[in-house]
Amino acid sequence: MIQKYLYGVPFDTESVVAPIPASQGEPPVGTVKTSESGFCFACPLAEGDRVYGLGEATRGINKRGFVYVSDNVDDGLHTENKQRMYAAHNFIVISGQQNLGLFFDYPARIRFDIGFTRRDWLEVTCERADLALYVITGDSACDVVKQFRAIIGRSYIPPKFAFGFGQSRYGYKTQADFEEVVAKHRQAHIPLDMVYMDIDYMDHYKDFTVNPENFPDFSGFVSKMKEQGVRLVPIVDAGVKEEAGYSVCDEGKEKGYFCKRADGTDFEGTVWPGWSHFPDVLNPEARAWFGSQYKALTDCGIEGFWNDMNEPAIFYSREGLAERLDHPPVPHEDGTIDQFGQAIGWLNLSNAPEDYARFYHKVDGKMVRHDQVHNLYGYNMTRAASEGLASIAPGKRFLLFSRSSCIGMHRYGGVWTGDNHSWWSHLLLNLKMLPSLNMCGFLYVGADLGGFNADTSRDLLLRWLALGVFTPLMRNHSGCDTRRQEFYQFEGPEDFRSVIETRYRLIPYLYSEYMKAALNGDMLFKPLAFVYPEDEIALQTEDQLMLGNEVMIAPVYTQNATGRMVYLPEEMLFVKFGPEGRITQEVLPAGTHFVKVALNEVPLFIRKGACIPVADPAQTVADIDPATIRMIGWPGASYDRYDDDGVTIPAE
Amino acid sequence: MIQKYLYGVPFDTESVVAPIPASQGEPPVGTVKTSESGFCFACPLAEGDRVYGLGEATRGINKRGFVYVSDNVDDGLHTENKQRMYAAHNFIVISGQQNLGLFFDYPARIRFDIGFTRRDWLEVTCERADLALYVITGDSACDVVKQFRAIIGRSYIPPKFAFGFGQSRYGYKTQADFEEVVAKHRQAHIPLDMVYMDIDYMDHYKDFTVNPENFPDFSGFVSKMKEQGVRLVPIVDAGVKEEAGYSVCDEGKEKGYFCKRADGTDFEGTVWPGWSHFPDVLNPEARAWFGSQYKALTDCGIEGFWNDMNEPAIFYSREGLAERLDHPPVPHEDGTIDQFGQAIGWLNLSNAPEDYARFYHKVDGKMVRHDQVHNLYGYNMTRAASEGLASIAPGKRFLLFSRSSCIGMHRYGGVWTGDNHSWWSHLLLNLKMLPSLNMCGFLYVGADLGGFNADTSRDLLLRWLALGVFTPLMRNHSGCDTRRQEFYQFEGPEDFRSVIETRYRLIPYLYSEYMKAALNGDMLFKPLAFVYPEDEIALQTEDQLMLGNEVMIAPVYTQNATGRMVYLPEEMLFVKFGPEGRITQEVLPAGTHFVKVALNEVPLFIRKGACIPVADPAQTVADIDPATIRMIGWPGASYDRYDDDGVTIPAE
Repeated sequence: MIQKYLYGVPFDTESVVAPIPASQGEPPVGTVKTSESGFCFACPLAEGDRVYGLGEATRGINKRGFVYVSDNVDDGLHTENKQRMYAAHNFIVISGQQNLGLFFDYPARIRFDIGFTRRDWLEVTCERADLALYVITGDSACDVVKQFRAIIGRSYIPPKFAFGFGQSRYGYKTQADFEEVVAKHRQAHIPLDMVYMDIDYMDHYKDFTVNPENFPDFSGFVSKMKEQGVRLVPIVDAGVKEEAGYSVCDEGKEKGYFCKRADGTDFEGTVWPGWSHFPDVLNPEARAWFGSQYKALTDCGIEGFWNDMNEPAIFYSREGLAERLDHPPVPHEDGTIDQFGQAIGWLNLSNAPEDYARFYHKVDGKMVRHDQVHNLYGYNMTRAASEGLASIAPGKRFLLFSRSSCIGMHRYGGVWTGDNHSWWSHLLLNLKMLPSLNMCGFLYVGADLGGFNADTSRDLLLRWLALGVFTPLMRNHSGCDTRRQEFYQFEGPEDFRSVIETRYRLIPYLYSEYMKAALNGDMLFKPLAFVYPEDEIALQTEDQLMLGNEVMIAPVYTQNATGRMVYLPEEMLFVKFGPEGRITQEVLPAGTHFVKVALNEVPLFIRKGACIPVADPAQTVADIDPATIRMIGWPGASYDRYDDDGVTIPAE
Repeated sequence: MIQKYLYGVPFDTESVVAPIPASQGEPPVGTVKTSESGFCFACPLAEGDRVYGLGEATRGINKRGFVYVSDNVDDGLHTENKQRMYAAHNFIVISGQQNLGLFFDYPARIRFDIGFTRRDWLEVTCERADLALYVITGDSACDVVKQFRAIIGRSYIPPKFAFGFGQSRYGYKTQADFEEVVAKHRQAHIPLDMVYMDIDYMDHYKDFTVNPENFPDFSGFVSKMKEQGVRLVPIVDAGVKEEAGYSVCDEGKEKGYFCKRADGTDFEGTVWPGWSHFPDVLNPEARAWFGSQYKALTDCGIEGFWNDMNEPAIFYSREGLAERLDHPPVPHEDGTIDQFGQAIGWLNLSNAPEDYARFYHKVDGKMVRHDQVHNLYGYNMTRAASEGLASIAPGKRFLLFSRSSCIGMHRYGGVWTGDNHSWWSHLLLNLKMLPSLNMCGFLYVGADLGGFNADTSRDLLLRWLALGVFTPLMRNHSGCDTRRQEFYQFEGPEDFRSVIETRYRLIPYLYSEYMKAALNGDMLFKPLAFVYPEDEIALQTEDQLMLGNEVMIAPVYTQNATGRMVYLPEEMLFVKFGPEGRITQEVLPAGTHFVKVALNEVPLFIRKGACIPVADPAQTVADIDPATIRMIGWPGASYDRYDDDGVTIPAE
C-alpha cells in the first residue's frame, strides 16, 4: 500500500508519475515535524532492521550506520566518509520485522541520518517543509520496491548494442586515436561495440560541435566506424561556452534559455570551456530547445550520448571569484597557520553553495532559485536529451546516460557512477551500488571499470571487468593523467579476450533479464537479503549479488587472490567461463566455499533448478548468432528468454 | 645466510648494527645496475611468489601488484593509491619457491615496483647508487625475518603501563579537559592508563613548554593524574618555534644545532608554531642537545612522549612562499581552466621536494643536503629522545613512539601509523600493517583507533577497539574537527567497558608475547602465510593474523555485521570475551566458519594444544592482580609466561 503525505507547497519534481491521492493525518510510522526551520521525519530502528536504498551512495548495501546527503556534487574522491555523490535518490526501505518504503520527493539538499548519531534512530531532515512523503508498506523488501517502481514509471531501455563492451579514456583527441582503439580490439579479436568520446572531441569544449581539424569529415568517420561495428558515443556537458558567434550560445541568450541572475542577466560560471552558461532545463521551452541541439550529432550518425558535469559542476562564478580577488590572502610576516589556512580557503570556490544561490530557473512563469531545486538539474538535462532525441527520431532507442541524476531521470537514461578510483575497494563499491540503484529505477548502470582516477593494474582491471561482465553498462574508462588502461597496454591480451568474450556469451541472458526487469518493474540486481530474508548470513553478505532470477554473482575483489570465499544460501551450480570457450560446472552444497577463480575466468552461480542461455562469443552484439544459444544449468530446467530487435521501444 | 653488497659511498644510516663484511661480485639473485643516473635492482617474480614487508605502507600484507615509495611524507589521506606514507621501511621478503630477504639500506627516496608494471617483475630504484644491499636467504619467511631482525638490533621495549589503554584527542586544551577524560573513565569503570596531550598543551606550540595559563602547576597536575593511575603523554614536534627569548630556539641558534641553508644561515619553515627551525638530529652533538630538552618535561614527572611532524613536515619555507608570492595567480578574463589550475598550484607548497633541498645537516664535519638523507629525520629525532631520556634516567623505560620512522628507529621507539580516517577500510589496513611493521623491527605499534580524520560511529569504534585490544599501542585518537569519540560520547558505556576490560584481561599474555618477540627477535603478529605456508587459502588470507605462538585473531571489520567468515587452517578453540567477565569457548574444526561476534565481544582463536594466561580486569596495568591469572585453552596445555617489573630494561 502506498500513502502520500503532502507538506507545504511541494515543487513538482515529476519523479512520481502515478497519480496518488494525498492522505490526511499522520503517516502510519514515525513522526513528522514541520516548521519554519524545516522538515524532520524520525522513526526508531529495531535492532535487526536493515535500511536499503539511496541509489548512488558510498558504503554498504545496508545503509545503516552512516549519514547520507542528497545534494548533487561533482566530487571525484569517493572515500567512505563522503556523504554525497552526484545523485539524489531519496528512496529507502527499512526491512526487518516489517518492510517499509519511504520516498522523500524533494528537489534540494536532504539529509538521512540512518542510525549514525544513534544506532536505533532514523532522522531525515531538509531545510524547507515543502515536500511529498510516500510511505509504502509491503510483504517483503522486493514487494515494497516493486510498488515504488510502479509509481515512478518504467526504467529507461537502451538499444541492444549498448549491452556490448565500450572502451573510453579522457584524452582520445583525434580520429587516429579512435581508429587505433578500434583497430587494436579488432586485431586482438576482443569484442567491442562502442568507443566513447570524452570532452576533447569538441571544438574548444563547445557542446554539439566537433573539432574540425581532428575530424574533418565527422559523419564519414562515424559511418566508417559503424561499418566496423562500433558506435562512437560523444559526451555532452551541461555548460554552454560563452562565445559570440557560437550558435548554441547566441540562441540560448537571445531566447532567454539560460539560467539567470536575480537581476535577469545571464549567470556565468567557469567549467571546461571557460565562462559558460547553464541551460534552464527546468523550463520546458528551454529544455525542448536544448534537447533539439543533439540533432547536430545525430545528423552525423551518432546513436548514443553521455551527459556530464550536470550537477551542474561550476569551478567558480564571476561573483565568487570577484569576492575572493577583492581579498587576496596576505600571509603574515610570522607565517602562522591561520593565514595559510585562509589562503587555502581563498581557492575553495568550486561547486560552492553560494553560487547555486546566485541563479534562477523559470518554472511556470516563476523564478525558482537554483539551490531550491538543485538536485533536478542533471535529471532534466538528460530528460532534455531524451525528449529531444524522441522528437528527432521517434521510436528509436538511443544510448543515453548521465553523471548526475535524481529519481525520475531513470525513465530517460542510465547513469554511470562518476569519477571513481583504481582502487580494489571501488570494485566492491561498484557491486554494492548496483541493487541500490535498481531500487531507485536505475537499471542501465555501470562504473568506470578499472577505475577513472589513479593508476590501475592489470589484475585490478581484469577482476573489475569480471564484475563489469554483469553490469548493463560495461565500460573501461580512465582519466587523462593516469596509466593507460586499454587492454592492449598490458601483457596477455588473451586474458582480456576471455573475460570480455564472456560478456558477449552472456548477453542473451543479460539482455533478457534487463528487459524483464524494465518491463515488470523488477530489480536486475538484488541483495542476497532480498531473496533469502530468513538466512542470517545472507542478510549481511555484501560482496555477492543475485542477478536476475537465476544467477548469483561473487566477483573476486582483492589483489593477489587465486579465488575467494563465497556463501551459498542454497545448493547451486558453480559455473566458470574460461578462455577459448571453456566452461566448467560444479554442484556446490549450501554453505561457505573457497572457490578458485583465475584472472581470465568469470564465475557465476546458477540457482537450483534454473538455467541460463549462453551464446558463442561475437565481436559485436549484432554479430551474436542466436543459433549458437544453448542452455547451461540444472537438468530439466527451462528459461523463458525475452528478445526483440533492440531498435523499437516496447509498448508501455 | 646474509650477504652485504656495497655500491658507491653509502651514507651510514646505522639501520644495521651487526658488522657484516661486504661480499664481492654480484648478488646471488637479480641484477644490479648502477650508473650516474642511479641504482636499479631487478629480479623476476615467479607466479606464486608473495612479497612481504615494507612496514608502514598501504594495501595488502602481500605487497605484490603495486608501487611503493619510501620518501617520508606528512599525508593524512591513506587511500589505496598512495605510494608513500610517513615511514621508510625498505625490507622485503620474497616468499614462494624460495624465501629471500632484501634490505636496501639507503636514506632517501627509493621506489619499489613490485609486479605493478609487469606482474612477473620486481624493480627497486633510487636516484644515487650509494647504498648497501643486504640479501638474506633462509628456510622460511620467518627464518629470513629473524635473520634480518638479528642484524638491526633489538626492538624498543616500552614500560609496562604502555600496554594499557590510552585516550587521546587533538583538541584537549586545559587541565579540566584532561581531568574530565580521566574522571569519566573512572566513573564508568573503564580501564585507562594514559591520556595523550596533543599540541594544544604547549605554550604557542613551543616544544618542551606547557601553556602556563591552562596548567599553572604542571608537575602537580602530572602527579595528581598519576595518583589516579594515569600517565599524561605529551606530544613533541620536530619544528622549534623561532622566537627570541625562547630558550630552545636561542640555544639552538647560538650553538648551530639547527639545519642550515647552503649559505650557513638557519633554514626556516612554517609548521604549527609558525616560522620554525629544524634540529639537526643527524649531528650527534645537536642530537644530544635536543634529547636533553626532554628533561623539561621528565622533571615534571612525564614518563612518555610521542614525537610528531618529524618527516619533517613543512607547510612552506620562506623561499618557497617568496617564489610563489612573486608570481601571484592572475586569472585570465576568459577564466579558462588552465589559469585556475595554476592558481591551485600556487598553494601546493607543503612538504615540497624543493624545500627538502634547501637545507643541510652537519655529519662528520660535512654538510649533507637534507633530501639525500630525508628518511632518517624522524628516526634520529626519536633517537635523540631515547638517548636523551637514557641519560636523564639511566635504565628507566619510557613510553616513546613516533610518526615518522626508518628501520633503525625500531631500537629507540615505536610508531603509530599516523592520521588515518574513520573508515572501516582503515580498520583492516591497521591489521594488515601489523606483521609488516613487525618484520621491520617495529613491535610497539598501533593505529588511531576509531580513526583520526572524519567522523567515527559507535560500531566502527567498538569494532576497531576490538582489534586494538591486541595491538601493543592501544589508543583512541581523533582530530579536532571530527565527531567526539571518547566512549562516553556514545550510548551504552558498558559495551566499551567490556571491550577495554578484555584488553586488560589479556595483558599477561600480550605483554609476555611482546617481550618474547622483542628479546628473541621474533614477530608478534604474523601473516597466516608465515605459519601455514602449504595452505593455499591461508596464503591469501589477509584479514586474520597469527598473534604470538598461540593465538589467531580475526576481527569484524564491516558495518552492520553480526559476525564474520573466518578461515581456520587447523582445528582451533574459538574464544569470545564478553561483558561481565563472560568467556565462551568452542572447538571449531579446520575450514571456514561464520562466527557470531556482538559489538561488545572480542573474539580470538587458540591454536590446537595451546593455552593463554588471562587475568581479571583492572582499572590500570599496575592494578592487574597476578593471583587472578588463569589459563584458557586446550586441556593439558601449558604456557611459559614472561613477566618482569616493567621498569628496568632487560639486558640485551
